[in-house]
Amino acid sequence: MIVIGEKINGFIPKAYTAIKSHDVDYLVELARSQVRFGADYLDICTGIVPEYERETMRWLIELVQDAVDVPVAIDSPDPQVIVDMIPLARRPGFVNSVSMEKGKCETVFPAVADTDWKIIALTCNNDGIPDSAQAKYELAAKMIEDASGYGITHDRLYIDPLVGTLATRPDALADFNRTALRIRKEYPDVHIISGMSNISFGMPYRTAIAAQFLTLSMAVGADAAIMNPLSPEMRAALFATDALLGFDRGGTRYIRGCQEGLYGSVRR
Amino acid sequence: MIVIGEKINGFIPKAYTAIKSHDVDYLVELARSQVRFGADYLDICTGIVPEYERETMRWLIELVQDAVDVPVAIDSPDPQVIVDMIPLARRPGFVNSVSMEKGKCETVFPAVADTDWKIIALTCNNDGIPDSAQAKYELAAKMIEDASGYGITHDRLYIDPLVGTLATRPDALADFNRTALRIRKEYPDVHIISGMSNISFGMPYRTAIAAQFLTLSMAVGADAAIMNPLSPEMRAALFATDALLGFDRGGTRYIRGCQEGLYGSVRR
Repeated sequence: MIVIGEKINGFIPKAYTAIKSHDVDYLVELARSQVRFGADYLDICTGIVPEYERETMRWLIELVQDAVDVPVAIDSPDPQVIVDMIPLARRPGFVNSVSMEKGKCETVFPAVADTDWKIIALTCNNDGIPDSAQAKYELAAKMIEDASGYGITHDRLYIDPLVGTLATRPDALADFNRTALRIRKEYPDVHIISGMSNISFGMPYRTAIAAQFLTLSMAVGADAAIMNPLSPEMRAALFATDALLGFDRGGTRYIRGCQEGLYGSVRR
Repeated sequence: MIVIGEKINGFIPKAYTAIKSHDVDYLVELARSQVRFGADYLDICTGIVPEYERETMRWLIELVQDAVDVPVAIDSPDPQVIVDMIPLARRPGFVNSVSMEKGKCETVFPAVADTDWKIIALTCNNDGIPDSAQAKYELAAKMIEDASGYGITHDRLYIDPLVGTLATRPDALADFNRTALRIRKEYPDVHIISGMSNISFGMPYRTAIAAQFLTLSMAVGADAAIMNPLSPEMRAALFATDALLGFDRGGTRYIRGCQEGLYGSVRR
């Protein structure tokens, strides 16, 4: 399971304030703590108005790379910003993201074709997110085939089935499962990734929903998550499920996590 | 999802001490708190040497029924003890349990045939617990057919696939899933139940393993659990998963649980 730490994101109010005011101490600690608690990659999203996005992103990428030793996920709605940031990265990470929105794949695929960058691909297009798992699958299949045209192998692609919000869509999980299982079946080497926050939007104690969604997504083959590694509940779900699904055989890593105090204990 | 509270069990040291010393206050509170936190039934297991099991069980059943208003699960390794306790119950609950061990089904099935009692049936026999899901399924199928011979309908049967211990059997969950899915497929009206404690035996912070197993068991169709309702982690997993799987549409019950403070928050 690959963990992409989600906390350096300008759409989170505290992070936005820190990014805007160039609060280096706060951001360095946000980078270090996520890595300390298990992030394999760190997402970098400025959330800053387009005019300043490029310079802010450049500054953030350098800052994070000076602070920690994990690769970054370059996260921008603007594919040209993503492409322009790639040379700054000291080693390949994730581009976050492409979709079937006009211009995204066409801009990003050629730029990463002959590299080791991994690609997050969202199942949406200019009309938004399709309602049906079948339509999501078709968008995924199109992106996978397009990527192949550039020589990008299946194992570098991480499809995000864009799980819905449970509060407004009671079948959000069922739709995610159908999409993920179909992609897994047709393209066994393609990965499944999901953000853990969206499904719980508008619900109280969001972490409980996110943690159980993490477990359930892993059960249908998701092998990467954009999540908050600073949450003990998320870490407990991640490590326990890894052991239960047999990836962490005998629970060696789970037990080490306990010894390192990764899971916390619950207050009544 | 049916929750059977597991705490009044003489195999738990604290409960054993309370049962042995007739600590009424402790046991009444154990009954009441489990019901307050969501138990639909209360398991009653004395853990007392056979000579005194019958009188202890009788005393416990009366005590619990005086304290709370939910039915009991009569839990004994001795099928004759179970059958003898049935007349004490003020309303039908669970018999816990039968298996293909000699004498169990033959004793219990005729006694509950014309009643509304539900039956927990374990997939083991005199040789112990089979290694393979196929052999477990065959034991389940035999018990289901035997029960039908007594006029016991499928919907009164709760098959427990006897999940293994993760620490010694890394494929414990996979084996559970195979058994549960097969039973669900062949006998859609038969229920799947599991104890939540066994899989985590020998692991640290057992609750994390138990909570994620609860979620994963529900994902393959388990609709009853013998569990500790006093654990906020277990409750969070139960209610969040019920919402995610669409049984609790819109998360109404999940949200109410939050308002009632059922899930707690985690200490770092």
